[in-house]
Amino acid sequence: MERTRHQGMAKNTYMRWRLPLVCLLWEVAMIVLFGVFVRFSPEADAHWEEEKQEMNLTSDMENDFYFRYPSFQDVHVMIFVGFGFLMTFLKRYGFGAVGFNFLLAAFGIQWALLMQGWFHSFKNGKILIGVENLINADFCVGSVCIAFGAILGKTSPIQLLVMTLFQVTLFSVNEYILLNLLHVKDAGGSMTIHTFGAYFGLTVTRILYRPNLEQSKDKQGSVYHSDLFAMIGTLYLWMYWPSFNSAISEHGDAQHRSAINTYCSLAACVLTTMAFSSMLQKKGKLDMVHIQNATLAGGVAVGTSAEMMLTPYGSLIVGSISGIVSTVGYVYFTPFLESRLHIQDTCGIHNLHAMPGLIGGIVGAITAAAATEDVYGKEGFIKAFDFTGVYQTRTPSVQGGFQAAGIVVSLLMAFAGGAIVGGILKLPIWGDAASENCFEDEVYWEVPEDEESDVYHMHNPDKPASP
Amino acid sequence: MERTRHQGMAKNTYMRWRLPLVCLLWEVAMIVLFGVFVRFSPEADAHWEEEKQEMNLTSDMENDFYFRYPSFQDVHVMIFVGFGFLMTFLKRYGFGAVGFNFLLAAFGIQWALLMQGWFHSFKNGKILIGVENLINADFCVGSVCIAFGAILGKTSPIQLLVMTLFQVTLFSVNEYILLNLLHVKDAGGSMTIHTFGAYFGLTVTRILYRPNLEQSKDKQGSVYHSDLFAMIGTLYLWMYWPSFNSAISEHGDAQHRSAINTYCSLAACVLTTMAFSSMLQKKGKLDMVHIQNATLAGGVAVGTSAEMMLTPYGSLIVGSISGIVSTVGYVYFTPFLESRLHIQDTCGIHNLHAMPGLIGGIVGAITAAAATEDVYGKEGFIKAFDFTGVYQTRTPSVQGGFQAAGIVVSLLMAFAGGAIVGGILKLPIWGDAASENCFEDEVYWEVPEDEESDVYHMHNPDKPASP
Amino acid sequence: MERTRHQGMAKNTYMRWRLPLVCLLWEVAMIVLFGVFVRFSPEADAHWEEEKQEMNLTSDMENDFYFRYPSFQDVHVMIFVGFGFLMTFLKRYGFGAVGFNFLLAAFGIQWALLMQGWFHSFKNGKILIGVENLINADFCVGSVCIAFGAILGKTSPIQLLVMTLFQVTLFSVNEYILLNLLHVKDAGGSMTIHTFGAYFGLTVTRILYRPNLEQSKDKQGSVYHSDLFAMIGTLYLWMYWPSFNSAISEHGDAQHRSAINTYCSLAACVLTTMAFSSMLQKKGKLDMVHIQNATLAGGVAVGTSAEMMLTPYGSLIVGSISGIVSTVGYVYFTPFLESRLHIQDTCGIHNLHAMPGLIGGIVGAITAAAATEDVYGKEGFIKAFDFTGVYQTRTPSVQGGFQAAGIVVSLLMAFAGGAIVGGILKLPIWGDAASENCFEDEVYWEVPEDEESDVYHMHNPDKPASP
Repeated sequence: MERTRHQGMAKNTYMRWRLPLVCLLWEVAMIVLFGVFVRFSPEADAHWEEEKQEMNLTSDMENDFYFRYPSFQDVHVMIFVGFGFLMTFLKRYGFGAVGFNFLLAAFGIQWALLMQGWFHSFKNGKILIGVENLINADFCVGSVCIAFGAILGKTSPIQLLVMTLFQVTLFSVNEYILLNLLHVKDAGGSMTIHTFGAYFGLTVTRILYRPNLEQSKDKQGSVYHSDLFAMIGTLYLWMYWPSFNSAISEHGDAQHRSAINTYCSLAACVLTTMAFSSMLQKKGKLDMVHIQNATLAGGVAVGTSAEMMLTPYGSLIVGSISGIVSTVGYVYFTPFLESRLHIQDTCGIHNLHAMPGLIGGIVGAITAAAATEDVYGKEGFIKAFDFTGVYQTRTPSVQGGFQAAGIVVSLLMAFAGGAIVGGILKLPIWGDAASENCFEDEVYWEVPEDEESDVYHMHNPDKPASP
Repeated sequence: MERTRHQGMAKNTYMRWRLPLVCLLWEVAMIVLFGVFVRFSPEADAHWEEEKQEMNLTSDMENDFYFRYPSFQDVHVMIFVGFGFLMTFLKRYGFGAVGFNFLLAAFGIQWALLMQGWFHSFKNGKILIGVENLINADFCVGSVCIAFGAILGKTSPIQLLVMTLFQVTLFSVNEYILLNLLHVKDAGGSMTIHTFGAYFGLTVTRILYRPNLEQSKDKQGSVYHSDLFAMIGTLYLWMYWPSFNSAISEHGDAQHRSAINTYCSLAACVLTTMAFSSMLQKKGKLDMVHIQNATLAGGVAVGTSAEMMLTPYGSLIVGSISGIVSTVGYVYFTPFLESRLHIQDTCGIHNLHAMPGLIGGIVGAITAAAATEDVYGKEGFIKAFDFTGVYQTRTPSVQGGFQAAGIVVSLLMAFAGGAIVGGILKLPIWGDAASENCFEDEVYWEVPEDEESDVYHMHNPDKPASP
Repeated sequence: MERTRHQGMAKNTYMRWRLPLVCLLWEVAMIVLFGVFVRFSPEADAHWEEEKQEMNLTSDMENDFYFRYPSFQDVHVMIFVGFGFLMTFLKRYGFGAVGFNFLLAAFGIQWALLMQGWFHSFKNGKILIGVENLINADFCVGSVCIAFGAILGKTSPIQLLVMTLFQVTLFSVNEYILLNLLHVKDAGGSMTIHTFGAYFGLTVTRILYRPNLEQSKDKQGSVYHSDLFAMIGTLYLWMYWPSFNSAISEHGDAQHRSAINTYCSLAACVLTTMAFSSMLQKKGKLDMVHIQNATLAGGVAVGTSAEMMLTPYGSLIVGSISGIVSTVGYVYFTPFLESRLHIQDTCGIHNLHAMPGLIGGIVGAITAAAATEDVYGKEGFIKAFDFTGVYQTRTPSVQGGFQAAGIVVSLLMAFAGGAIVGGILKLPIWGDAASENCFEDEVYWEVPEDEESDVYHMHNPDKPASP
């Protein structure tokens, strides 16, 4: 270990004052802002009894809590266990993967409650929050977790917090443009979460390009058990994705339909991923990297359209294609992006989020453009696309056009935002590690001496015990 | 590793064309069949607003989604994380356990939606699917995961897919006979899922008997961390089993009661398992194999009766007995089955699913036969056993007889089906490994060079880095 | 291993007759008592159809099952996976952590259903159980899991069962005094679960003080992968804590509000924990012990007040403070408690549960005392504190006083109960291990020979295979 430590001295990765300062200042700011702005929504406020009478509700069951809380918890698991453990595949970066993901997400959801609140839940000078706000905050932070995947192992915790601060802000602006100005549907966030998050992260990692990263190449792989830990993340993301895509859909059929479409898409995606993983490897063996990641592309790719009448077979088609695209991406595009475009994408988010996110946006635009009153029913048609008020006269094909515009806006926001934030993160004050110490927990974490050999085989009884 | 690889050449385990071909052909078939047959149920269709008015429903809460979705997600976790991780106990088959389980389940749920749909949700030439269909598809695939436990480590992924195709088909036929023709109650699937799945799998493994399996005996055990991974599977199965047994019960009291009975049975089962695990071992130490498996027998054994008025103390009795039977099975029956009957049962599904499944079927028959209007109430009695229409005059004791008949039918289907499918899987075209390479991920997976020693202790800095 | 085994002989840790005897006797007692006392609540009984008509309910959705079951399952995961895996951080006590936690919790929930049933659900000579009773039983056992954290690695399974028996009993008495006699609010159990459980466990471990515990100091740390397993526990506790604190709150706004307050508190807690973990270490590196534990203090500290109008910013303040207190506790108090007060607290429950539990009780008292009709609304005020019947005239400040009294009662019960139970556990008949064999699974578990070296590197092909 001495070697690692000494070389680490080349760059100042000392966090003792910087990290606490950022965290504490931030938390104080949150307390002040929450104190000024954040209150409970009527459904979470103790005045609910009066609210119920006013709204003529006969049952507590009508509280939005019961429509959305189970989905919220599933989404919560995806953000913290799903993304956290998915990234533990690196042999010596498990603490950083799960720990920094924990840190940035906990940091980000507070800021997201404020930012999204100002845009969407602001009433009489107060942000009124309920369970749907919690889901949206988790969603917003999800896009940061995605971007984290591109720079995993190469950044300091402070860089992650700075990135989170800016990305949450930009996410909220982009989301506002899409949902409110363009009146776009994107319940599962193919555009707002995946396309935006992934291209943002890819732009950041491009700007933070490390020419000497091959110095830590020996640590940029997995070991047997770290691949199993990563599968915990994969499976929770895969299983709960139907909840993700349906969590903020309209009550009733829309939530129901989103879950079914996503379930179908993901099932198909597993098969095409396995097929191409085996096909693209000379020995025909399956590659854990593909199974851990590309199997999830089906969830991303129906993010926009899941609540529409995509139909189960439509979902199978989208899922199948996205699994293929994603696996092919891991085999051919990732090396290309690294060698030619200098985009070092640790987790391959280009394959798991960027391309499937684009597919998702396009499928959403097509599905919206193809919608008819016949398929949706008269009321269902209006409800599905919220063609009320000023949007009363919008036609499906116009909606499709706006959906497509949403993709473009998300891309532009991602590239511009990523470039600016990447530039900020390049400043030499954030404490990132030298290239030969990337992908190594030792830099920012107290790592236990590995005493396995001692305890298991007792072959070295003289070695001093770990503290 | 060279040794393993060379010996593996003895049998052709090359998957490069076979596995992709099967997966892709299958997925195309699914897309075509879904396109022809599968549509949304009225509760997931955009016409739901009209449906609501027709059915005079006042709240979106009445959508079946809200009655069943939380249970569905728990069942989903059991199938993918529960079964998947339970089987990671083998020291060198974690990728295969969790990865092949993922593959076969994703493959199977699509086919199950069709098969079960044709039998149960077919209307005007279309299969109408909603959340209950998703649960049933997961259930159906659960029986395949069970059978997988018997042949774990000894079959190629293609064999698993072929088995899944046939087993899902047979499961659906058997389920149709039981639920529709015999009018049997089996909400938690003691008969349809566990008895059928386990005896099917045992028959298959009997036919695939490998006389030289002791050549890979060194890999047929666990290591310290693989046992902990397996405990993840165990606990998720154990915790969510109340959701499994109640997921498709009638709304209201039946779901509520199923969960309580299952909770009680499982709690009791842990205690008797621990007791017998310690008692049956000379040194009195606990055996992880028992804790990982036999603690779950209580869930299996109340699968049929959980939604009946089994009562909490009845559940404790059933749970206690099944824990004892299962643990005794691991200690005495499994070696007997292997040495005398040539049944090589990798995970001991005979102890965890077959015997407790039979207990479950019998307890269900007795509980049904003992039902009275006094205990259930007049309306509750009719509702619990669905004694309406042509079954209006069926008495409890007759119902008990039919329940018993359901066990017999399930067994016959399992033996006959398992024999045929086992025969098919014995064909030398599916790419299974030689006996000395069983229980070894290296055969079908890219396994990372284990670099732990390098990274941790730096004792071999010259070794080339892993790719 | 021989060394360990031989020294273990110094104390009789042989469980073969003792453990089965205790488990089986106990299970028989449970069956008899359940047979005499326990029946289904009306909402889980087959007479529900009649009940519905009597209560004029129009929908099965009004069954308490649908209000609480999702939260119940989350709580269930916290008890079995959350606590179980949180304690797997020790390098050689993973089986004991997750396995004994499983044993004592399965044992305890049955006894808790009875004890709490007699106090709270007793009607016409029967205990009527529904989903809320399952949640409460899990809560009660949670306090035992907490106490287990203090004595982890130093006690035999029989000692754990004896402790569980007594602690569940005392918990129920204490809970009855607080909830029924003092009419205190404590939905998330800051007082009843955390304060009581933690000080009970600390008292027990004080009495079981082992002066020679440093003999097993080499095993009292973590290894790399055991820290990752522990993070599974941490994250599930953290994510599901909003469900824990809201699980038994009143339907509607109270459940909704509890979840939001807890979510906010936990998010803040992560930031202050990270800040102080880095700040208090000379090299500024993060310590996994803090991340695994102190990040959860925010959930404990809003346990009493989460269902009150604590408000989101109030929650941020409480969460921030508890993260600081808890982290400081790990760095300074734990060593002090061990060296000066002879309190050997394996998991640091003093920092995670005791101090934050006290904070939670105090915050609850203040929040209650500060309540006004203005903030809660007329009806909401009465509903929140249940100021009906004999409590109709109780004022907020009086309620605050009673809340404070609840803390004192919980502490007294914990100290007195812990002293007595500690004394009982000190008897030399329970089979605990010698101090040099603490924190070692080998004592009570069949531990697989570690064959990793063989399988991975094949450097010792002559070694006999594991059984």
